[in-house]
Amino acid sequence: MNPLSSPLLSDLYQFTMLQSYLEQDMQETAVFELFIRKLPPGRNFMVAAGLEQVLNFLENLKFSSEELDWLAARFHPSLIDYFEQFHFSGDVHAMPEGTLFFPNEPVLRVTAPLPQAQLIESRLINLFHFGTLIASKAARSVLLAPDKLLVDFGMRRAHGAEAALLAARASYLAGFSGTATVLAGALYGIPLFGTMAHSYIQAHADELTAFAHFAYSSPDNVVLLIDTYDTEAAARKVVTLAPILAADRINIQGVRLDSGDLAAHAFNVRQILDQGGLQSTTIFASGNLDEYKLQTLLSAKAPIDGFGIGTALDISIDAPAFDCVYKLQEYAGKPRRKRSEGKATWPGRKQVYRYYTAEDEMSHDIVALAENDPHEGQPLLEPMMLAGQRIHSKISLHDLRQQTLANYTHLPKVMTTLEATPAYPVTISTALQDLAKQLDAEMVTHL
Amino acid sequence: MNPLSSPLLSDLYQFTMLQSYLEQDMQETAVFELFIRKLPPGRNFMVAAGLEQVLNFLENLKFSSEELDWLAARFHPSLIDYFEQFHFSGDVHAMPEGTLFFPNEPVLRVTAPLPQAQLIESRLINLFHFGTLIASKAARSVLLAPDKLLVDFGMRRAHGAEAALLAARASYLAGFSGTATVLAGALYGIPLFGTMAHSYIQAHADELTAFAHFAYSSPDNVVLLIDTYDTEAAARKVVTLAPILAADRINIQGVRLDSGDLAAHAFNVRQILDQGGLQSTTIFASGNLDEYKLQTLLSAKAPIDGFGIGTALDISIDAPAFDCVYKLQEYAGKPRRKRSEGKATWPGRKQVYRYYTAEDEMSHDIVALAENDPHEGQPLLEPMMLAGQRIHSKISLHDLRQQTLANYTHLPKVMTTLEATPAYPVTISTALQDLAKQLDAEMVTHL
Repeated sequence: MNPLSSPLLSDLYQFTMLQSYLEQDMQETAVFELFIRKLPPGRNFMVAAGLEQVLNFLENLKFSSEELDWLAARFHPSLIDYFEQFHFSGDVHAMPEGTLFFPNEPVLRVTAPLPQAQLIESRLINLFHFGTLIASKAARSVLLAPDKLLVDFGMRRAHGAEAALLAARASYLAGFSGTATVLAGALYGIPLFGTMAHSYIQAHADELTAFAHFAYSSPDNVVLLIDTYDTEAAARKVVTLAPILAADRINIQGVRLDSGDLAAHAFNVRQILDQGGLQSTTIFASGNLDEYKLQTLLSAKAPIDGFGIGTALDISIDAPAFDCVYKLQEYAGKPRRKRSEGKATWPGRKQVYRYYTAEDEMSHDIVALAENDPHEGQPLLEPMMLAGQRIHSKISLHDLRQQTLANYTHLPKVMTTLEATPAYPVTISTALQDLAKQLDAEMVTHL
Repeated sequence: MNPLSSPLLSDLYQFTMLQSYLEQDMQETAVFELFIRKLPPGRNFMVAAGLEQVLNFLENLKFSSEELDWLAARFHPSLIDYFEQFHFSGDVHAMPEGTLFFPNEPVLRVTAPLPQAQLIESRLINLFHFGTLIASKAARSVLLAPDKLLVDFGMRRAHGAEAALLAARASYLAGFSGTATVLAGALYGIPLFGTMAHSYIQAHADELTAFAHFAYSSPDNVVLLIDTYDTEAAARKVVTLAPILAADRINIQGVRLDSGDLAAHAFNVRQILDQGGLQSTTIFASGNLDEYKLQTLLSAKAPIDGFGIGTALDISIDAPAFDCVYKLQEYAGKPRRKRSEGKATWPGRKQVYRYYTAEDEMSHDIVALAENDPHEGQPLLEPMMLAGQRIHSKISLHDLRQQTLANYTHLPKVMTTLEATPAYPVTISTALQDLAKQLDAEMVTHL
């Protein structure tokens, strides 16, 4: 059983519900929509990511004989028979990856026979939620520092292997320059960056020797870590070493700071490097950075050219989860509405329309019914999979990243900062409001 | 390349450093220790978990031909030759899973040739950090509510597939009753729990029919979700349904509340069920729960028998990362000390000794040198792998869970609450302090 693709990576209730659906022959078409209920504090928008993983999951969903055996000991034979033939044959409409979106906007819609649409819920949320979580976090640093080198350094404290990989992907999609995670480079073609660890310096008898060894071993990537013992002293060693390396045509590309007062050290180190003739040697900073520390360093005009952002990015430290849900909106042609306290949903299959100002800035969105409720704006949900087949060829991650960067240019300027602004206007169409009222009235009658 | 086992799931700098180590023939024995620098706010202790995954990773670490090809395009042939033959041949000493531990205590020690010990850093932290993060979070609920059914409900908002599985494992190890994540049941033998989703109720024409269909389909696991429309009305439907099901020898085991004021609903529902003769039908609650909400519900004496804890558990929402590091402490027989500002480490290979009061309560720990610094206390670090081979047969997850529950009984009572208490006393042995001073003196001379 491969944890990354197994249909058993799901909640138990999906299986017990499916058993009942099949026994009642409840296999008519269901429409589920995925949305995020609210923005975390301090956030103004979200960036859709993870659709590629969702489509890949749906395309390849099947049960192995080992999985069927495990299930057969626990569920009715009719369910096992159903799983033996299982493949996903439904439709998926979604906002393209990199789309900026807001709470309560459906961002992905599944239209499929009820058991299929139900079975996929847990993993679909799991994949879409995490991609969007990280892309939305990464976007904040990208918008603050569009001209800086931003690198994902978060693998070691990401929550497991898949989180590390998908965080590298989502942050690159959102505009990061690359990652330190080698496998993300190998699997997704993301540019890789890396320097050296303190252990490398410590394992050598002295720091200068460590620098020299590294430079001769990786002459095309000489970025030296200078904070192991004394940052400014190490910067002076870099200046001492530079002409020796230059004689061998090796250029010291950069130095890395990883502790202490990064702004103060950067000013000192810049001066030492410049006075030593190393004006083109860049300064790269890391060490528990997030977008708030980035903003402080930028405000101080610290001479730092690039930033490694690790844990805070890969776990989305200020908002490690979004309130992301996948809800039944229609079954057998009839709109459905969940009315649980504080968790009521807008019924029916929906579309989101986006409007822009004359200056091409996003002005507002309207959530409307997908059918018989036309609007002039740009429809954000597009068909992505029909009858279980993708209808687009796969878009390259590089192109998705370019599209995301283009999307940022339409954001109202006030929303590009770290401060929470008044909510972006998202209104509910009259037709959708009427439908909700009608369902509530029917429900009251029914109770 | 399998993301769960690939040696490329690592940081780029591990590879550039290894290339240099091999070129300089720096292959003498290195000792790295893993520790957590500080407790997050409000926490009193941590629970070690993830060692099983670490040992499994080390035992199976090798490079596939595809991985070697990818590396060959980027690194020197000598590094590729080294990787072709690679297997981990070092030693691992560690605290057993389930051990309660504190900041700056080495919890895992790797002794291996420098390139090996370096290469494994990123994934070793990634696995150990996450297991310990979740076990430490889960322990808080277990200590609060030792007699309640506690179930991991977090898969959908866990950070990817591996996080979902390892969160189920770590929370069970820490004393949870089980999980809803099917694959965690299949792979680890963790007890599975599940009810039904709101979509199940909504897909039916009415709630009572949904309840009946579910009961007949899963007669051994009848836990009915009663908050989709009106919780108390649904509880009355449960009472109506019970005798009909009883005629078919089906027992309604429980109901689930998932929204609104859980305590108030629980009191109402308990009364409705009791008056309807359903005294043995339990009440299970879920919906954005964490240990603080659990405490509130327990304080209110809400008649709730079990809790599904989801997102807050699987992402460790109040502390989604620990400051977990893996540092070089000795190379080629010589102790090493990193002195970066605010990040200095205790040098040398170390042992942790634990002391107990006459009442068998933990009193204090001493961090000492592993050799020539004997202490009377219980040594916490044990040999787990020697020369690349495990020295114990695998302990069952069930036994690890029992051991963890036993460990809790030695915690000072004041540390079992959700409030932060004065730090548990961890002292540094005189010999270790002397070694650190000596290294600092040598360093000053050296600079």
